[in-house]
Amino acid sequence: MTHKIHFARYFPILQCLKNYTKQDFNGDIFAGIITAILLVPQGIAYAMLAGLPAEVGLYASILPAAIYALLGTSKTLSVGPVSIAAIMIASVLSLPEINALGSPVENAIILAAEGGLILLLMALLRMGSLVNFISHPVLTGFTSGAAILIVLSQIPHLLGLPKNPCGMHLACYSEYLPHINLIATSLGAGSLIFLILFSTPLPALLKKLNLNQTLITGISKSAPLMAVILTTGIVALYQLSETEHIAIVGQIQAGLPIMHYSFIKNITQWQALLPSAFFIAIIAYVESVAIAKVTANLRNEKIDPNQELVALGAANLGTAFSGGMSVAGGFSRTMVNFTAGARTQVATLIAVMILSIAVIFFTEQFTYIPKATLAAIILLAIFPLIKLTDIYKTWQYDRGDAIAEITTLLGVLILGIEEGIAFGVAITILSYLRRTSRPHIAIVGRIEGTEHFRNIKRHPVKTWEHILLVRIDENISFANVSYIIDFIERETFNNPETKQVVLIFSSVSYIDTTAFEALENLIKVLKSHAICLNLAEVKGPVMDKLEQTHFLKQLKPGRVFLQTSEAVAKLNAAKS
Amino acid sequence: MTHKIHFARYFPILQCLKNYTKQDFNGDIFAGIITAILLVPQGIAYAMLAGLPAEVGLYASILPAAIYALLGTSKTLSVGPVSIAAIMIASVLSLPEINALGSPVENAIILAAEGGLILLLMALLRMGSLVNFISHPVLTGFTSGAAILIVLSQIPHLLGLPKNPCGMHLACYSEYLPHINLIATSLGAGSLIFLILFSTPLPALLKKLNLNQTLITGISKSAPLMAVILTTGIVALYQLSETEHIAIVGQIQAGLPIMHYSFIKNITQWQALLPSAFFIAIIAYVESVAIAKVTANLRNEKIDPNQELVALGAANLGTAFSGGMSVAGGFSRTMVNFTAGARTQVATLIAVMILSIAVIFFTEQFTYIPKATLAAIILLAIFPLIKLTDIYKTWQYDRGDAIAEITTLLGVLILGIEEGIAFGVAITILSYLRRTSRPHIAIVGRIEGTEHFRNIKRHPVKTWEHILLVRIDENISFANVSYIIDFIERETFNNPETKQVVLIFSSVSYIDTTAFEALENLIKVLKSHAICLNLAEVKGPVMDKLEQTHFLKQLKPGRVFLQTSEAVAKLNAAKS
Repeated sequence: MTHKIHFARYFPILQCLKNYTKQDFNGDIFAGIITAILLVPQGIAYAMLAGLPAEVGLYASILPAAIYALLGTSKTLSVGPVSIAAIMIASVLSLPEINALGSPVENAIILAAEGGLILLLMALLRMGSLVNFISHPVLTGFTSGAAILIVLSQIPHLLGLPKNPCGMHLACYSEYLPHINLIATSLGAGSLIFLILFSTPLPALLKKLNLNQTLITGISKSAPLMAVILTTGIVALYQLSETEHIAIVGQIQAGLPIMHYSFIKNITQWQALLPSAFFIAIIAYVESVAIAKVTANLRNEKIDPNQELVALGAANLGTAFSGGMSVAGGFSRTMVNFTAGARTQVATLIAVMILSIAVIFFTEQFTYIPKATLAAIILLAIFPLIKLTDIYKTWQYDRGDAIAEITTLLGVLILGIEEGIAFGVAITILSYLRRTSRPHIAIVGRIEGTEHFRNIKRHPVKTWEHILLVRIDENISFANVSYIIDFIERETFNNPETKQVVLIFSSVSYIDTTAFEALENLIKVLKSHAICLNLAEVKGPVMDKLEQTHFLKQLKPGRVFLQTSEAVAKLNAAKS
Repeated sequence: MTHKIHFARYFPILQCLKNYTKQDFNGDIFAGIITAILLVPQGIAYAMLAGLPAEVGLYASILPAAIYALLGTSKTLSVGPVSIAAIMIASVLSLPEINALGSPVENAIILAAEGGLILLLMALLRMGSLVNFISHPVLTGFTSGAAILIVLSQIPHLLGLPKNPCGMHLACYSEYLPHINLIATSLGAGSLIFLILFSTPLPALLKKLNLNQTLITGISKSAPLMAVILTTGIVALYQLSETEHIAIVGQIQAGLPIMHYSFIKNITQWQALLPSAFFIAIIAYVESVAIAKVTANLRNEKIDPNQELVALGAANLGTAFSGGMSVAGGFSRTMVNFTAGARTQVATLIAVMILSIAVIFFTEQFTYIPKATLAAIILLAIFPLIKLTDIYKTWQYDRGDAIAEITTLLGVLILGIEEGIAFGVAITILSYLRRTSRPHIAIVGRIEGTEHFRNIKRHPVKTWEHILLVRIDENISFANVSYIIDFIERETFNNPETKQVVLIFSSVSYIDTTAFEALENLIKVLKSHAICLNLAEVKGPVMDKLEQTHFLKQLKPGRVFLQTSEAVAKLNAAKS
């Protein structure tokens, strides 16, 4: 029995299968077919985006997706190649020093393997919560920036230009106008219009015609595949790749990926790729969990962040061993899977089986897929990720957060993808540290006729000239101790009558070494002015720590009082 | 009048001179002479430590010291070349890629200029408080590590070996035993014993003989100069540098430094040196302020961190323009200045004048100073900075802080000086973020017969089955919001009777964008379970922010109550 529970903890899918119903299966099989239809063009398109052969994207959609289905805690997250990771891989592979170390495919596989190991290590150290330190503004700024880079990278494909000649210099495109391949542009623009029509206007029309909702979903979601089939047919029929130089996907290796270990050899290569692998893994994890939470919330299911580290880590190791690129949960694919009615990860397993059949038998048919169509598919998937209006919304709510968002966005566009996110995180943490370095501190007095002590600024309270009562409302650490000490010294020396200072520690449950030493120093400074420091309402754990040291000896003649009221009574009695 | 106040703010020395007395002058002139006596051997020794010609250290003791005297807020801090900055400079100058860009002197001058500009920029942005984020354990670990590196770097000089052959490999020294220059070792060991005798045993003896305290201080503090004069005399007399190959300082350029701008030309060089300049400037600033605070506390004076940025920034720019190395407040020099009776920065100005005379007329006499003696002076100044017992003390108090301290120390020794401190700071901030990501949250109930609400775990209180009252005791931000949301969801769903959740915001004065979005999402999740979220005791600034957005509309039918008691009364009334 305990064995079973153990098993179910590591393989969340077992819990699902225990209560699996016929209805669940009906939902899963339909969603599985629809998702599989999306997987082929997306897999090829994201491999192209990363600058890799098409099969690398297809392989990444098979084993990793199956591994996540077994280990993941989301019932609907669709794991495979994703656009953001793809553009990050592309930016690494474009570096000359990385290129010198091995082939793009080999480098991409090592990136995935390292990412997987990093995520598994984080799971072991239970560091799932650390990714909370990528705040929403930074994540949104990063995603928008990366999405803009993706759009720019697809423009040449859409226009049938040779490899991206302009990068971010939009003005440069005008010079290339004569080189635009009009047939490629027509294929791309046609696909784009086709996809836009099928995304919202057509389903709305079909709904008015009272068509079955399942059928509408099926028609709408297979638009990418239909666009691919139509344009590929045209290209193949008229041999446009020969006569009109239309860029096509080309020959794809047929058959399932073969497990291999050949990428584990070159330490220099692994070292050179490690920083990028770290960034890709973190972003893949953060985006996956964010997407998983969206669908889980809609169905009141729970995502376990630590188990997600395990599942995504294993999926990325799986992609490496089966010759694929880094994987994560994809937003558009997951939403398709969810809205098509997926109930459990069985849907993913069905999609994987269909895709495997396609990879075994139909790669021949993928050869003539025009890159312009794939570019159109990428553009339509990526546009919703550019959230520039979000910056305005954030600005209205909190300017500091908006600045972090804009900085991250501009950082991604100007400095580079990894630099942008590192910069954004640094800004978030710095402004957080700055904010928490000004804790709430109150000078308190007694509410007449009670034993309650309250802020003298807010309540009419009794105070005593020779006693200063200071309540510190936060844990004391290196980040805020100089602010606290400055406050106490200022308040103490402002009133020359002060002879006793009482620090009320009712909200202090932790004092770090830096703060501890600063307090020791405060005792000395006050003593040199013949002022005595006392403590009151010290919590158990804090008292234990102080007793381990010489602090209480140094405090003398200052004392530690249980209650503030006791401190006031005894210090008043001692005076008179 | 307002003009005067303005002036005094930027030139703190003016405030001092307003009430300057004869007594002040007596103290200052004695301290100035004693400090000047120390400045010559220290300046030459720290230039040697940094791998620079002797005059670079002397120049760094003149103009920068004078600039700090005019601008600094400490009355006794002695600014000039310091050992920690010197070893950092040495580690930069030893890099082949830096060496390729220019001469060591040129690189050192650029490091100082960039450091000065960085500190002035930080002053402009009022970032003085940000250096609090170098916690005590990290600073102590860093200082001990750098001091150990300095000791190791001086061993070859002390033994008369050619340039450091062993680095950190202590075992290697045994191979070099035959190469030891016994005369150099005698000079070094003799100086060391002489300095140790003069540091504590001799003053103690003289005190017993009832000698005047001023005289004792004078004798004790001029020990370094006496050691230099004695050993230099021996070397010059017997021409030991010729006959016995004793390493000497060599010819020093005579005359005051000439202002020059020739180092402002090569952008690549400035870029390459920038990261190191940043670390040197930060450490110089942090150590200077720490030392300034020690002496200021002893005399109840105040250090203004932001004005210190201005003063140290200007001093470092000054050192660059006058051909010197990076400067900071030196610990041993400041303590000598202070204990010799310095009252104001006039002492420094006197010392600077004496040093200038020495540099103009007596550089000829510096030629034969043996390096072994300088190594002995450095060792004696550096030993007190190695605080390995401090690690044990920290370990007893807080293991996390002790690990940060050990990591920084080992990082400095193994990875390098800059890497060590960066690593230590990163660990401190990560563990701080982790700690603050678990805020205090309490489920509260009403103390019978009162309007007070208290933690149900600590007090016997009345609760209501359909109402969950949650008091959040900290500001809500990206760092802690997932912990808070998880807590609320767990407690809510644990009791199926819960229909109303009331968040008590009495301690919340800030909600950042990430937290705000998570709360919006919480409203949705609870609504889908037919549970209503309410707020109580929302502070003014928080309420203003919520009113700017659609939050309150989304909250409906949930409400915002002024008091927790009001929330309980109205929610109970609504139910019945």
